[in-house]
Amino acid sequence: MSDPTTLPRTLSFVCKALGDDVDDRRAPCRQAVLATVGDGGAARMVILRAFTPWTVEVHSDLAAAKVAQLRAEPRATLLFWLPEAQMQIRLRARFTVLAGAEVADRWTAIPDGPRRAYGGTPPPGTPLLTPDDHTYTPNRDRFAVLSGIIDSIETLHLGDIHRRAIFRRDDGFTGGWIAP
Amino acid sequence: MSDPTTLPRTLSFVCKALGDDVDDRRAPCRQAVLATVGDGGAARMVILRAFTPWTVEVHSDLAAAKVAQLRAEPRATLLFWLPEAQMQIRLRARFTVLAGAEVADRWTAIPDGPRRAYGGTPPPGTPLLTPDDHTYTPNRDRFAVLSGIIDSIETLHLGDIHRRAIFRRDDGFTGGWIAP
Repeated sequence: MSDPTTLPRTLSFVCKALGDDVDDRRAPCRQAVLATVGDGGAARMVILRAFTPWTVEVHSDLAAAKVAQLRAEPRATLLFWLPEAQMQIRLRARFTVLAGAEVADRWTAIPDGPRRAYGGTPPPGTPLLTPDDHTYTPNRDRFAVLSGIIDSIETLHLGDIHRRAIFRRDDGFTGGWIAP
Repeated sequence: MSDPTTLPRTLSFVCKALGDDVDDRRAPCRQAVLATVGDGGAARMVILRAFTPWTVEVHSDLAAAKVAQLRAEPRATLLFWLPEAQMQIRLRARFTVLAGAEVADRWTAIPDGPRRAYGGTPPPGTPLLTPDDHTYTPNRDRFAVLSGIIDSIETLHLGDIHRRAIFRRDDGFTGGWIAP
């Protein structure tokens, strides 16, 4: 992977890191932080399930707080940190919550084990006397896809000097440098 | 470190991980994501500079967007992910921006090299023709301490079962389990 020292190389680096090649299962960057407005700034770890230029997908339990937060304010940030590359990638996107029939194909593709993440009784955030008072009840009606349209991609590369760039939908993602 | 399978052990795990023992330089958790409300949810990597029960400190360039965002909405989240422990730690805190004489002691303790992070011409976010059009101009007047009072600590431990707990200032951080 070429050094991200030019704008086109930087954008190409991002696309490779986030796995734009669907045949490449080795995408280094599956784990991200999803930051929503919430009640004050809110954040949690998520898994990036799909990336194309210029969309993203994350899966969620429909009963999770992030779903309600994105319905109230669809704009959010997906943040990635690549320690080896010393690169921070920040995607700003507008999210739509998809569920039911429109995500039946994604549900079908999920193995039984991971389906435990969608459903669960009682729902997320309910007080429990002990952790064992929660049972996994996989439920396709509780499966949601957070589908995001990317508005901007910001990179910060901590190299010999710090290089910070921003690529915006408004400029066709041609990008420009900004002060770090 | 004991397994975080009881509430007191979970809170003790958090305190050790975030380095409540100032003599222990091996605190595993120095890197975090700071999520602010911003213009839609905003987030960036930061370094945890201090943790005590129950306060935190992060350093920033006074001209960075996060400073303006915290002045507009002081509530924010600090998110940590500990891969070895498979533990997510989420601190919700209210931040005050300190600068100038009141943080002179912290500035004095920062070596010359790292001081480059505070200052810089032009200021963060300014469009540049090339990354080289930015120069490091360490400046104590641009050094800020983001001082946070912790309102809650939420943990999610992905073990044999998923254990999620929340400890709140309001309950004296005694804590309780909640559904994951």
